[in-house]
Amino acid sequence: MDSIAYVNGSFVPLSEAKVSILDRGFLFADGIYEVSAVLDGKLVDNASHLARLERSVGEISLPLPENIDRIIEIQKELVARNKLENGLVYLEVTRGADKGRDFAFPKGVKPTLIMFTSVKDIVNAESARKGIAVITVPDIRWTRRDIKSVALLAQVLGKQAAAEAGAGEAWMIEDGKVTEGGSSSAFILTQDDVIVTRQNGSEILPGCTRKAVVKLAEERQLRVEERAFSVDEALKAKEAFITSASLFVQPVVSIDGKTVADGKPGPMATRLREIYVDFARATAT
Amino acid sequence: MDSIAYVNGSFVPLSEAKVSILDRGFLFADGIYEVSAVLDGKLVDNASHLARLERSVGEISLPLPENIDRIIEIQKELVARNKLENGLVYLEVTRGADKGRDFAFPKGVKPTLIMFTSVKDIVNAESARKGIAVITVPDIRWTRRDIKSVALLAQVLGKQAAAEAGAGEAWMIEDGKVTEGGSSSAFILTQDDVIVTRQNGSEILPGCTRKAVVKLAEERQLRVEERAFSVDEALKAKEAFITSASLFVQPVVSIDGKTVADGKPGPMATRLREIYVDFARATAT
Repeated sequence: MDSIAYVNGSFVPLSEAKVSILDRGFLFADGIYEVSAVLDGKLVDNASHLARLERSVGEISLPLPENIDRIIEIQKELVARNKLENGLVYLEVTRGADKGRDFAFPKGVKPTLIMFTSVKDIVNAESARKGIAVITVPDIRWTRRDIKSVALLAQVLGKQAAAEAGAGEAWMIEDGKVTEGGSSSAFILTQDDVIVTRQNGSEILPGCTRKAVVKLAEERQLRVEERAFSVDEALKAKEAFITSASLFVQPVVSIDGKTVADGKPGPMATRLREIYVDFARATAT
Repeated sequence: MDSIAYVNGSFVPLSEAKVSILDRGFLFADGIYEVSAVLDGKLVDNASHLARLERSVGEISLPLPENIDRIIEIQKELVARNKLENGLVYLEVTRGADKGRDFAFPKGVKPTLIMFTSVKDIVNAESARKGIAVITVPDIRWTRRDIKSVALLAQVLGKQAAAEAGAGEAWMIEDGKVTEGGSSSAFILTQDDVIVTRQNGSEILPGCTRKAVVKLAEERQLRVEERAFSVDEALKAKEAFITSASLFVQPVVSIDGKTVADGKPGPMATRLREIYVDFARATAT
């Protein structure tokens, strides 16, 4: 059945949801996106995603075409219209469609706002029980990875390489260290029981789920260090795992075909996943 | 008056030319583009652009939805339908629209092909007579700049900065050297009358107009060196200029507000422009 999407003020069947070929999202990747999970019909950690949206659009001087309260209304109306219980709401803002194609910002053009939903049972994902394999690829992205732009071709190529290798994620490597996954944050648990994830900066996206997991861990007196780590360190760690809005927490059981510890999901990743699911359910709006 | 565009097999008014919000060009910048100039109703150096198109799509494993002969037919039909005498034909191929959003390549999805035209009197552009100002910005792009992808946000930001400074182009700087302009190749003429432009590699796009200009210069026994140069070297040069399909050759008269030589278009840029225009007219198809 065709779901309902939102395109610039209208709710339309997804099959009819279109933008101009002059849209700057299509011509220039001149746009920002966010993905919020939906649990039991409610948005998970959505304020964090919308705060990041505001930051990202600010970094590229892209005015939002609707204020945040209205964006939340649209998200909720879309969830309701699609009777979405568990899944994702995707949101993209672009600098709109001018009359032609010119790199510099257009004047007097209203930005584009689109949303659509997808069904996904994130809580009961089989990959969370079995763990996922990751491969490594060179991090070939631009230098402003803190901006959640739709210029995702490098991530597409990395995640395609992972898919071809039968893996679930690609960890990107720069200067011998893991930056992050193609669409997730990377974590390890050291032999000293320290949870390690890379510090925020222009080298990585400031993950919303990463942020929540770090906070939840610290609240439980778990030791967290925000610093870069290498694949070698990950392979010698007790555990490795990833976080993202669409996966929550998922154990990593191998890297480039080599097992992490005994190659099974570890107790810390499993525990943090449970803690995060509880947090998500308790705070979803 | 609304011009005619091409979208996946149909010729439609540009105002009705649309793609799905699920198109991977819109969601992931998972697409490649080319721009060919039109002079006197004919395509300029088009075989070179289509050879580069084939190379770019090959680098990201994106199959063309139509063969090159058919693409040329569509380009020409679009020029004819729009009665385009002088201007540009823009062409974009993306990995199409799947049923949802997943980074890895979709299966069984036909790639998207769109084209549209714009009117532009490239030969008589005022900026070619007056020269243009350029500013410099850090080159923050990904490492595969040889692929002509639509992931152009860095170039958008650079060229917007140029526009705000009253300049016509942004030269991108990496490791103290100019890579290229936001949408053009960068050249200087040294005090020893050597034409210098950066060698091809993953650091820059292999410019079609750059390639033609280098060949035309060499055929005329002009000395050409393909190597990187710095802004300091450009400021001490006899001339500086840029090349692109939509500008041909244009003199650069200042960089970051400092004049190049006497701040006026130089004879070499003017001569190469004339040579290129003659070549373009003589070989357009």
